[in-house]
Amino acid sequence: MEIKQNIKIAVDAIVFGYDKEGLKVLLISPKYGKFKDFWALPGGFVKDNETLIKAVKRELKEETGVKTNYLEQLYTFGDLDRDPRMRVVSVAYFGLVNPKHSVLKADTDAKDAKWFGIDNLPKLAYDHNDILTVALSRLQSKLQYQPIGFDLLNKSFPFSDLETLYQTILQKNIDRRNFRKKILSFGFLEETGEKLSIGSGRPAKLFRFNKKKYKELEEAGIQFEIN
Amino acid sequence: MEIKQNIKIAVDAIVFGYDKEGLKVLLISPKYGKFKDFWALPGGFVKDNETLIKAVKRELKEETGVKTNYLEQLYTFGDLDRDPRMRVVSVAYFGLVNPKHSVLKADTDAKDAKWFGIDNLPKLAYDHNDILTVALSRLQSKLQYQPIGFDLLNKSFPFSDLETLYQTILQKNIDRRNFRKKILSFGFLEETGEKLSIGSGRPAKLFRFNKKKYKELEEAGIQFEIN
Repeated sequence: MEIKQNIKIAVDAIVFGYDKEGLKVLLISPKYGKFKDFWALPGGFVKDNETLIKAVKRELKEETGVKTNYLEQLYTFGDLDRDPRMRVVSVAYFGLVNPKHSVLKADTDAKDAKWFGIDNLPKLAYDHNDILTVALSRLQSKLQYQPIGFDLLNKSFPFSDLETLYQTILQKNIDRRNFRKKILSFGFLEETGEKLSIGSGRPAKLFRFNKKKYKELEEAGIQFEIN
Repeated sequence: MEIKQNIKIAVDAIVFGYDKEGLKVLLISPKYGKFKDFWALPGGFVKDNETLIKAVKRELKEETGVKTNYLEQLYTFGDLDRDPRMRVVSVAYFGLVNPKHSVLKADTDAKDAKWFGIDNLPKLAYDHNDILTVALSRLQSKLQYQPIGFDLLNKSFPFSDLETLYQTILQKNIDRRNFRKKILSFGFLEETGEKLSIGSGRPAKLFRFNKKKYKELEEAGIQFEIN
């Protein structure tokens, strides 16, 4: 059976990071082609014998050196003119990493890989600004019904770090007292027993996220929700 | 630039319907190929010059006669062996229609098109049972935070129809009093002024969904939520 179709399939990765400067996204600078003076999302063509998720993990590793376990399918972009070279349909995946835990190393099709603050983005290649907008909106909504924010924090953290993360990503002020009460009520956040001195204030208790406990609650049908 | 890639791209449509017999899905029987004795989701290959959404609307119309405005991208399925003929990546879309408003008419690659009760499904071609499982789960979760159920009901309906719809699709009992109170509190449901006599009970008020009002509430940031 011969199917006449001249469309290629690619994958792109939107990897968010977070540190004291705020929310960031991982971009690469292409080595070749029309967009070599632009920044772009890491990604590339799918090989005939690899699944979509394998392809996106491979491209991300090759172009940026970043390995991540949490990559989730975001959306498939298939507009006619999104790539000037040819018709390319791209399946986009998004993930979260802690920039401190990954050393960037551009290779293969990328000459550089860098974190960019979300409020300070260059104009991106292809339709990658649009893809990023969709990813950001998914991140914001997901943060409100799954505790994915912990992937962006250090293993142990003062509670104020979590507050700041929510305020930064949701781009709004939150009621700190209610937020703390609600988060602690779920029971998946535990004290490490250690404290951290920041400035002249009282030393802050450190917390860690208990993933196992969260999974149990999830299986019991407990819904996490923060708004 | 020559990209060596031997992967084809297709679209599939999961169209749900609902009537007094319950939740249904629209299936076709393929005219050709290995799966011609199976039922399958409507769908097919994307043309070089059409967007993904145009392709899925075209395939749905050609194979079943159904036209629908509400089709939303569900997920992209790209496992290596999902199609025995060749590597095919399929972008799945899901939609809702009222079976009463559409006349089925199979054509092109389909020799038949039929509604199947969700509890009475045949074994489907390809990985279509898996796709349907993902679609059903999306429908259930979406029903709880967007009032999409109204697309499945008649234009005017007694409140009990909406209750039954939620109970049927979510596959659980709901607290009828709380459900009614909550739904009516949003203000997007209005009385038509007419009543319907069912059996020997008191005639039931008829309601209709005010989409414009819902849009206004949505823009004002009011969140619809039923669980």
